[in-house]
Amino acid sequence: MDEEKDPGQLNVKDCFESLAQEARELYLPDTIQYIDGVPNPLDFYREYVCPNRPVIIRNAITHWPALHKWTIPYLRDIYGEKEVTVAVTPNGYADAVYKDHFVMPEERTMSFASFLDIMQHSNDLEKSAQHPGVFYIQKQNSNLTEEFPELIPDVEADIPWATETFGNPPDAVNFWMGQEKAITSMHKDHYENLYCVISGRKHFILLPPTDLPFIPYGTYPAAKYKEVSPGHFEMIDDPEVGQLPWIPIDPQEPDLNKWPCYSKAKPLHVTVNAGEMLYLPSLWFHHVRQDQATIAVNFWYDMEYDIKYNYFKFLENIAAVDKKL
Amino acid sequence: MDEEKDPGQLNVKDCFESLAQEARELYLPDTIQYIDGVPNPLDFYREYVCPNRPVIIRNAITHWPALHKWTIPYLRDIYGEKEVTVAVTPNGYADAVYKDHFVMPEERTMSFASFLDIMQHSNDLEKSAQHPGVFYIQKQNSNLTEEFPELIPDVEADIPWATETFGNPPDAVNFWMGQEKAITSMHKDHYENLYCVISGRKHFILLPPTDLPFIPYGTYPAAKYKEVSPGHFEMIDDPEVGQLPWIPIDPQEPDLNKWPCYSKAKPLHVTVNAGEMLYLPSLWFHHVRQDQATIAVNFWYDMEYDIKYNYFKFLENIAAVDKKL
Repeated sequence: MDEEKDPGQLNVKDCFESLAQEARELYLPDTIQYIDGVPNPLDFYREYVCPNRPVIIRNAITHWPALHKWTIPYLRDIYGEKEVTVAVTPNGYADAVYKDHFVMPEERTMSFASFLDIMQHSNDLEKSAQHPGVFYIQKQNSNLTEEFPELIPDVEADIPWATETFGNPPDAVNFWMGQEKAITSMHKDHYENLYCVISGRKHFILLPPTDLPFIPYGTYPAAKYKEVSPGHFEMIDDPEVGQLPWIPIDPQEPDLNKWPCYSKAKPLHVTVNAGEMLYLPSLWFHHVRQDQATIAVNFWYDMEYDIKYNYFKFLENIAAVDKKL
Repeated sequence: MDEEKDPGQLNVKDCFESLAQEARELYLPDTIQYIDGVPNPLDFYREYVCPNRPVIIRNAITHWPALHKWTIPYLRDIYGEKEVTVAVTPNGYADAVYKDHFVMPEERTMSFASFLDIMQHSNDLEKSAQHPGVFYIQKQNSNLTEEFPELIPDVEADIPWATETFGNPPDAVNFWMGQEKAITSMHKDHYENLYCVISGRKHFILLPPTDLPFIPYGTYPAAKYKEVSPGHFEMIDDPEVGQLPWIPIDPQEPDLNKWPCYSKAKPLHVTVNAGEMLYLPSLWFHHVRQDQATIAVNFWYDMEYDIKYNYFKFLENIAAVDKKL
């Protein structure tokens, strides 16, 4: 392979294409791989974490009581009166580019019982008309441990074999519960992510860090949705947040006329079903949607700021230089 | 750190400098680190192998009988009659750039007893004059297991904790024995290397893969030393080997007028004493010398052709593009 190309003939864009193509030839799967059962920590580190390779782990959370306990009546019983923070948007897109703005959701405080009512009647047109918009509990501040500590015994505060793998307990454990239309737009995190679906299912579109040069970025003024009258949302500028870099493309329907470069990206489409755990490696770009009401819990473990991160920053810098050429 | 630089202002050479500098800020040591005793395989993989970070391990081979048994009389007793392959050069430089050629050593077959005599009398001017040149057993074809199997019980055929770490036994185990002046010129290997000094000591000059853009490479016609009359070596062209890319600079006395770029490389100077083991990560550039007769055994474990290798090839390609600009 070393001899395949004459580097003397390459330009920077060729280098980007070689990087992405060789990643797939060398170590990235064409389709998501599965592990059946809890892996050995060293094997998992060597086979997945170090090479930055996603995988779905089956039978890793089947002992969690949450899998059968977390029904709407149960959650209402133990938690109904609790005040929760809910992200509300007109279209399901929270933290996404819309009309040349980076738009954040309206954050609404309500009782968990009210939120559960909305979840329960999502498909009842009459009742859901009383609560226009898409509702999603998606606060990523370790909200499971911070806001829902009573739910921890139904899952775990950490994944013991993963804590051994990464050498530290998780930095955050997040609780996600939302309606069919809730969407997380394409972005990346500086975390190693273990994403566990409790009920429903999640559809991920994944792109490896080495596809960065093909992914459009823009800089957008921040705004926030606000429901100004029933069912009517406006985007309100948020000058305090200012300008933000974000990915404008919708990988479900990419506009290749606007962003022809994206045609070189090779997304991995992954469905995570209830009872499954996705290992989503740090710095992978991901877009997440669901096609039914879904509950999930994810664990963010600190990533290592080592040679992989170092090279990724280099790739970002070279991509920025290339844009100027 | 993400915010430190405006990528819009960078050029390719700035990107190289950021890469090398951030490597040192994030994960590379200023001086070699030490571990006292055999590490836990998972910790070792996470702390050193995955981030591609060198370290010296003490007390990892103190149980090897070789440490006290491998004297010249002992080796002569058990192995004196054995035929061995010895690299002979006029100056100690085998596989190095000299007078615009890549020069390989003369490979001489002799009895191990004769080689040991030469080793023993290195400092006796009269006796060493009878054997002009520098003699080095340095055949890297797993010569310990292939040529010296009787020596294995004095060391080990593999390093059990390292075999667990890497998930496979070593691909090669090499035996090194040579005179004070024997030198290995700067190069890199596609292996994870555990380098164990039995007697004497080795001085390594190490450069991380991220310093690649500052390291000069040239392409040189291959040649081989041949002693044409006693003490007089000639370089004979080797058209079968043809042209080879190699690093011409001597990191002990770098010619910065000829290669000003090398001033940005930040070598790590490391001495490995008898009884110590150096973990030399894959793709690190290294120059090795000794200041006394030295015996060593090294274990080459297969490297992973994963994201680190993938990014390194990208860096090589970008460096080649930059040279054209």
